[in-house]
Amino acid sequence: MPLDLTASSLDITRAICDIPSVSGEEGPLADLIEQAVRGLDHLEVIRQGNTILARTDLGRAQRVAIAGHIDTVPINGNVPTKDIELDGEPFLWGRGTVDMKAGVAVQLKLAAELTEPLVDITWMWYDNEEVEAARNGLKLLADRRPDLFQADFAILGEPSNGEVEGGCNGTLRAVVRTTGVRAHAARAWVGENAIHRAAPILARLAEYRAREVTVEGLEYREGLNAVRISGGVAGNVIPDACEVEVNYRFAPSKTAADAEAHVRNVFAGFSVEITDVSEGARPGLDAPIAQEFVRAVGATPKPKYGWTDVARFSALGIPAVNYGPGDPHLAHHDEERVPIAQIEGTEQGLRSWLTGV
Amino acid sequence: MPLDLTASSLDITRAICDIPSVSGEEGPLADLIEQAVRGLDHLEVIRQGNTILARTDLGRAQRVAIAGHIDTVPINGNVPTKDIELDGEPFLWGRGTVDMKAGVAVQLKLAAELTEPLVDITWMWYDNEEVEAARNGLKLLADRRPDLFQADFAILGEPSNGEVEGGCNGTLRAVVRTTGVRAHAARAWVGENAIHRAAPILARLAEYRAREVTVEGLEYREGLNAVRISGGVAGNVIPDACEVEVNYRFAPSKTAADAEAHVRNVFAGFSVEITDVSEGARPGLDAPIAQEFVRAVGATPKPKYGWTDVARFSALGIPAVNYGPGDPHLAHHDEERVPIAQIEGTEQGLRSWLTGV
Repeated sequence: MPLDLTASSLDITRAICDIPSVSGEEGPLADLIEQAVRGLDHLEVIRQGNTILARTDLGRAQRVAIAGHIDTVPINGNVPTKDIELDGEPFLWGRGTVDMKAGVAVQLKLAAELTEPLVDITWMWYDNEEVEAARNGLKLLADRRPDLFQADFAILGEPSNGEVEGGCNGTLRAVVRTTGVRAHAARAWVGENAIHRAAPILARLAEYRAREVTVEGLEYREGLNAVRISGGVAGNVIPDACEVEVNYRFAPSKTAADAEAHVRNVFAGFSVEITDVSEGARPGLDAPIAQEFVRAVGATPKPKYGWTDVARFSALGIPAVNYGPGDPHLAHHDEERVPIAQIEGTEQGLRSWLTGV
Repeated sequence: MPLDLTASSLDITRAICDIPSVSGEEGPLADLIEQAVRGLDHLEVIRQGNTILARTDLGRAQRVAIAGHIDTVPINGNVPTKDIELDGEPFLWGRGTVDMKAGVAVQLKLAAELTEPLVDITWMWYDNEEVEAARNGLKLLADRRPDLFQADFAILGEPSNGEVEGGCNGTLRAVVRTTGVRAHAARAWVGENAIHRAAPILARLAEYRAREVTVEGLEYREGLNAVRISGGVAGNVIPDACEVEVNYRFAPSKTAADAEAHVRNVFAGFSVEITDVSEGARPGLDAPIAQEFVRAVGATPKPKYGWTDVARFSALGIPAVNYGPGDPHLAHHDEERVPIAQIEGTEQGLRSWLTGV
């Protein structure tokens, strides 16, 4: 059955959540989306893989990119969707309702409806956001067609409780290592225990107080955490190696070099290998177009903690924010559910800003 | 070629080292040993699996068990043996020279030669000492024929540098655990990091000062060590579990219950699971027969730190010591080598005690 974009955003959410699209298996949903938007005269449609781009070309003074990913994490008994009520409030329950098919449904509805927006719009619905960056549909399109990413502002429909969440923290991973000398555990004094030598690493992590950093008026909360520890050879051997993998989430005002220096400083005296780093994205809320958007949707800007694809726009010099229905704490949760009022609220917010009505 | 037990103990060592007998593959060597001792009129020979027992029955007032294992750890380019010289001292180099075919060779030579010892002797050459206890040939024979283990004293030919090493430490393994609450690493404050909570476990291990405990005049050095640590879910998740496996080596004056109480006390406040415990063996050097032996071989008794099969005799109420050629620090070492003088020295020591000459 084709997608009916004249239905309510709630019904479109229901329809696209009930079509499974776990990362790597977005084909059927991408086909339906392409089919639905190809029929619209005001949009030029481009497909690459399972990523669909649809754009107006009205010669407006400004262009806005509005994007959402169509994949989900694996289903765990939570498809098809259900209507539920919690404390008297109606919710749509099921995989993808929060992350982020409700956001995509609102975008699809407005893409069909808004034939004369105040700004030109580049709609983007992409695959493989929940897996490794190398497969990310938005990244692959940007690599091949950077020209399609020209815009004055970008909105990502990631769940933000219907508020505007600006930018995102950066993330750095490092491995902190200790070494020792192997020996038989019966004669431990002949060796040097690398796991014991890791005691100060864990002590520094346990004592670490994460900072809050204000960037363009928003408070970004940082964090430094062990995410893995391993060491040991056999039950009767003094271990000669131990490693602690740490993850540092750092405010978007910091560069990758700043983050690396901080982590090296915390673990001074130990071997530190930086294995992965992605800078965050500044909220970009100082741009006039961003301020107009925030005013129009009537939201209070908040910081986004997790890394999202807004950082890709930010890296291209395009101010970008997250704006979508659903509580981000429920993303990936088996009891994932979105308040129906938030689906309708973000639809209204986007429509009023894009049409001035 | 059959084993020639009239050869020197050095040549017997060379011969049996050059027949590989990694644990589980002792058959060919066991066959040769059985064949060599079956031809001796003064010995009754019993074989179970690849364990060979040979005993005199001269009606002597006392009986001594003298035992050695015939298996080795895996070969690593160190078979066949080589004659080498270090600082002018001749050595036999190769797998098994230290642990413990030189000891077995001395025993085989004396088993053949001593037709009229002052005490009755039960010689035992057994398989699978280097692997899990359930396969240990000495254990399997003791389980099935405890009558064969009747003895007033036992000597195990484990490497002890030609000195008498009494008893052995006990060993206990435990897993110390922490728990936490999983959360996305971007919002770490929602979770509780189980790896950070393990900081005091490592701190207590790093600060731990092992005791020396005097048992029957020998100083046993204890040890408490982490032998393994693990924790972590994924690179972006606050871990909800961490575990540290510790190994406590405790003096033979302590019971398993004492050892468990000590470990629980050190890690008070944490979940502690005892996974494995073997009590040590008292040196047994207060027995008159043991004192005569020490005097006869002219050795200074020392404590044995590692757990050895002397504990099996000790558990049967039989005083038992280790007495064999080779430096125990070189056991399992790829450069395993035994001083030729120690092979000859232990042969002389045993002969003089067993014959009074």
